[in-house]
Amino acid sequence: MLSPMAVCCYTHPIKPSTAIPRSASLSPPRLLRRSFLVKCSSRPNEPEPIFTSVRSFAPATVANLGPGFDFLGCAVDGIGDHVTLRVDPNVRPGEISIADITGSNTSKLSRNPLWNCAGIAAIEVMRMLGIRRVGLSLTLEKGLPLGSGLGSSAASAAAAAVAVNEIFGGRLSEQELVLAGLKSEEKVSGYHADNVAPAIMGGFILIRSYEPLELLRLRFPEETELFFVLVSPEFEAPTKKMRAALPGEIGMPHHVWNCSQAGALVAGVLTGDLRALGKALASDKIVEPRRAPLIPGMEAVKRVAMEAGAFGCTISGAGPTAVAVTNSESKGEAIGERMVEAFMAEGNLAATALVRRLDRAGARLVSSIP
Amino acid sequence: MLSPMAVCCYTHPIKPSTAIPRSASLSPPRLLRRSFLVKCSSRPNEPEPIFTSVRSFAPATVANLGPGFDFLGCAVDGIGDHVTLRVDPNVRPGEISIADITGSNTSKLSRNPLWNCAGIAAIEVMRMLGIRRVGLSLTLEKGLPLGSGLGSSAASAAAAAVAVNEIFGGRLSEQELVLAGLKSEEKVSGYHADNVAPAIMGGFILIRSYEPLELLRLRFPEETELFFVLVSPEFEAPTKKMRAALPGEIGMPHHVWNCSQAGALVAGVLTGDLRALGKALASDKIVEPRRAPLIPGMEAVKRVAMEAGAFGCTISGAGPTAVAVTNSESKGEAIGERMVEAFMAEGNLAATALVRRLDRAGARLVSSIP
Repeated sequence: MLSPMAVCCYTHPIKPSTAIPRSASLSPPRLLRRSFLVKCSSRPNEPEPIFTSVRSFAPATVANLGPGFDFLGCAVDGIGDHVTLRVDPNVRPGEISIADITGSNTSKLSRNPLWNCAGIAAIEVMRMLGIRRVGLSLTLEKGLPLGSGLGSSAASAAAAAVAVNEIFGGRLSEQELVLAGLKSEEKVSGYHADNVAPAIMGGFILIRSYEPLELLRLRFPEETELFFVLVSPEFEAPTKKMRAALPGEIGMPHHVWNCSQAGALVAGVLTGDLRALGKALASDKIVEPRRAPLIPGMEAVKRVAMEAGAFGCTISGAGPTAVAVTNSESKGEAIGERMVEAFMAEGNLAATALVRRLDRAGARLVSSIP
Repeated sequence: MLSPMAVCCYTHPIKPSTAIPRSASLSPPRLLRRSFLVKCSSRPNEPEPIFTSVRSFAPATVANLGPGFDFLGCAVDGIGDHVTLRVDPNVRPGEISIADITGSNTSKLSRNPLWNCAGIAAIEVMRMLGIRRVGLSLTLEKGLPLGSGLGSSAASAAAAAVAVNEIFGGRLSEQELVLAGLKSEEKVSGYHADNVAPAIMGGFILIRSYEPLELLRLRFPEETELFFVLVSPEFEAPTKKMRAALPGEIGMPHHVWNCSQAGALVAGVLTGDLRALGKALASDKIVEPRRAPLIPGMEAVKRVAMEAGAFGCTISGAGPTAVAVTNSESKGEAIGERMVEAFMAEGNLAATALVRRLDRAGARLVSSIP
């Protein structure tokens, strides 16, 4: 039988020897150089670039998925970040420079590759490949808003990791690229792979363990349509409060409940049973009930999404985006309208709705110049 | 697509009006009659018996399955309980009598149907069907040892429920029979369906909710072989201690870990990936680590099972049986030998090993007399 699930297991080959301080914030210290010398690994055959320039894309991701908190995520198509990467003789060999960052509200993002999600992941891939003789410059096109709960930082990291790998011939595996992406995520939001793994691999990914990194691809049936309704309010989710809202301890009945819903969620994904998937998505008794009240209108948004026929609805990542699931684009649009109205009526927040399919491919090259 | 998963949802049609005291222990009070008048429901058309006698079988079950604690169970073939049920003119119409109980160590079992797992389930099915005009007598053949962690009480209840339903033409659904079985389980071990649902339905069953009862059948691929190695030591697991050993509260990291393993376990079942299934089975960080030390030798038994090539090993139900999984009977026998040796060497306990396939059918009629 062709197994619908791949088990991937990968132990980091080289203990990271990065100079990137682990506990540092993302604000760049002054006077730091904008290009960064990659400390080389002992990989013996340094690859040559096979392109002079590549352009890559990585999709938005929805992490947590209700009872999938901290271990399950999926990719959504048509929105995400692009990276253009060039072999640049003006950059010192073995270094990478961020040439430009485009997109709205990108002023918060550093151009120092040490303090930029794309930069950190690119540096890590260069280190893994042992790049010493080629300098690179990177342009990041942000298609995702920051702090929306759609895996913005993970998309930047994923696009950069794939771009660097591909310009040198694609020697690294998806799992290695996830590890590179994790170096970046660690700096922004903690050592969690539930955004960056699906951003790189596409589809639904279950994070089974970190030591070693073990990822399960949960194959959603090819023939089944799945649409995500993503409704993002104009609201900055209070990240610290969102984290602080998590309970330290969980009672056994809620633990058993959420575990069973997590199992039902996985079953819904693997069998393409959207009703089961949606119901599980909406059934979290541990995290969502604590976080939803911190996002004005969220409880009403969920209620109207269900009333409008969504199979399920929950918070995307740590919010503030709400995500609902349905089986057709037109239904998705109708559900999205209701959700936008509810954010305004109950939360006094303007919001925008997008209806997107599951992205099954993950981060990929979109063009290249030999 | 033919979905590999059936979603069953059932709300109890009639609020139970049983005279069975909910909090009573299983010891029968003296002088209670051995037959029990079934209080009739309002079902209008009382069915006629279509057989004068039936014989049914219900399989042993493995509940918990590591991170599937309290919501996942499966049935194993070739061992279980039989019930023979007869239309008996010597029993008052609408009543049921337990004629005999056979098998080893059955002296603890009451012949009062009110205090016997098979009797309680049979009474509940008679009530659901509205039986008033026919008296029944039941013989229970225990094939399963009591208190072994193999769903002994659930097998008795399941066999009885199916027998009563079938003698009257099989009007009730599997879900209704599970509800009848739950009435019995409630008296013995709490309102848990993780043994009685797979005992009735076969295969792997995920208990998604109780109010209403909602069960997910997780279809294990037909073409994949799965063997359970069941090693039962001569040891009475201290039920109260086993329950008391459960933590009241669970830290978030362990909760997330067990949820992700529960997801991986479900994925392993649905895809027939025995390596993933076994690894998940053996990965519980919450219940097994607390219960295993209460069963002498259990930790060593698990270790040698893994060393001998089992894909996974854990405690079956609340123990003391250890369950390991593998993909061939001969491997299972070799693994079982090592586990028996370890129970003796490390726990000073004699033990017996059985190697059994997954039971995909659940409780069923094995013969009938018109």
